[in-house]
Amino acid sequence: MRPRQTARPTPRRRVRVRLETDERRAQLLRLAQAAFATRSYDDVSMDELARQAGVSKGLLYHYFPTKRDLYLAGLRQAAQELLAATLVEAPGASPIQRIRAGLDAYLAFVSQRAAAYTALLRGGIGSDPEVAAVLEETRQAYLEHILRGAAGAPLPAPLVELPLLRVALRGWIGMVEAASVEWLSHREVEGGRLRDLLVDLLFRTVEAAVGSSLTAGW
Amino acid sequence: MRPRQTARPTPRRRVRVRLETDERRAQLLRLAQAAFATRSYDDVSMDELARQAGVSKGLLYHYFPTKRDLYLAGLRQAAQELLAATLVEAPGASPIQRIRAGLDAYLAFVSQRAAAYTALLRGGIGSDPEVAAVLEETRQAYLEHILRGAAGAPLPAPLVELPLLRVALRGWIGMVEAASVEWLSHREVEGGRLRDLLVDLLFRTVEAAVGSSLTAGW
Repeated sequence: MRPRQTARPTPRRRVRVRLETDERRAQLLRLAQAAFATRSYDDVSMDELARQAGVSKGLLYHYFPTKRDLYLAGLRQAAQELLAATLVEAPGASPIQRIRAGLDAYLAFVSQRAAAYTALLRGGIGSDPEVAAVLEETRQAYLEHILRGAAGAPLPAPLVELPLLRVALRGWIGMVEAASVEWLSHREVEGGRLRDLLVDLLFRTVEAAVGSSLTAGW
Repeated sequence: MRPRQTARPTPRRRVRVRLETDERRAQLLRLAQAAFATRSYDDVSMDELARQAGVSKGLLYHYFPTKRDLYLAGLRQAAQELLAATLVEAPGASPIQRIRAGLDAYLAFVSQRAAAYTALLRGGIGSDPEVAAVLEETRQAYLEHILRGAAGAPLPAPLVELPLLRVALRGWIGMVEAASVEWLSHREVEGGRLRDLLVDLLFRTVEAAVGSSLTAGW
């Protein structure tokens, strides 16, 4: 389609208004994320969020028609931030350095949002189909990341298609989640030790699924 | 307290009525479990279950005031059955034989209830607090089972209290769940191969957390 600039009334003003709209939305989202990060879904109210933001309830509902919409928007943004923080691009780094850095970032990220992460994975809001879809897409992104070699060591094509390897890696991603929830609930283990354990077990998982020749070069 | 038999009116009749009540409840529960095993929570209706059982809706609601109560009762019973089937007591069997048998039973159990298991772990009803509590109790039972040596190789007391081992084993339980869901969604991997992989990774998990000396005797 050709741009129809002549049809646009006062383009400069429209841009300014749209930016303000985006900023307002981002502000509301940040406030909501902070609230959901430390308290349960049911404890957070739209009234209180509108008050905190200094806007009318009407305006808040204009951006997010329901609390669930607001929660979902915050969750989708958090998932994007998590992936951006953890799918580390580090040219020159060895595979093990990248995996370690990715896991460090993952543990730091969930540690800062412990209540929300635990509620998401151990009940609370986590069973909503759209919430479950965000979780599923995130896990799938990690699986693809590992399989496609974004971690630095591309897997040979035949292995990428190996069903047992996919099952094993999905298992390992489940291990990262379950171990993280347990870790956050007691905080007795130093993050670096958990990271080392999970790195170790990723290698062992790949070895158990496809043999040790593959990880020899990692 | 002393038994107050003399105060009981017509004890024989009461026993008979109570048994019938238990049987009716068990029948309704079996029907509900079968329905929830193959269809989603939302797709199952109380009307239809009452019709199937040949009872009035009023009677069904007498036993289970809401669909959620019925689902929860079915889930609790399924969790008991799962633990009974998988926490294998086999005197004389080696630790590895017991772990293999337990995992075989686990995979067979979830395979027969694939839709319900997947919905439970990947969204659907799984975020209800009481549903989450049943999941949590089941995972805790497996953790205690492994830690207390019901698998056949008692862990030394200092290790049982080791925070890293608890985190690692909770991680492994999460791996079993996540790998099972992935396995059930494609069914391309033979159950015995998945079982061998998970047994292998349980050993590697314990080794990674506490060193290999411990599993040398398994």
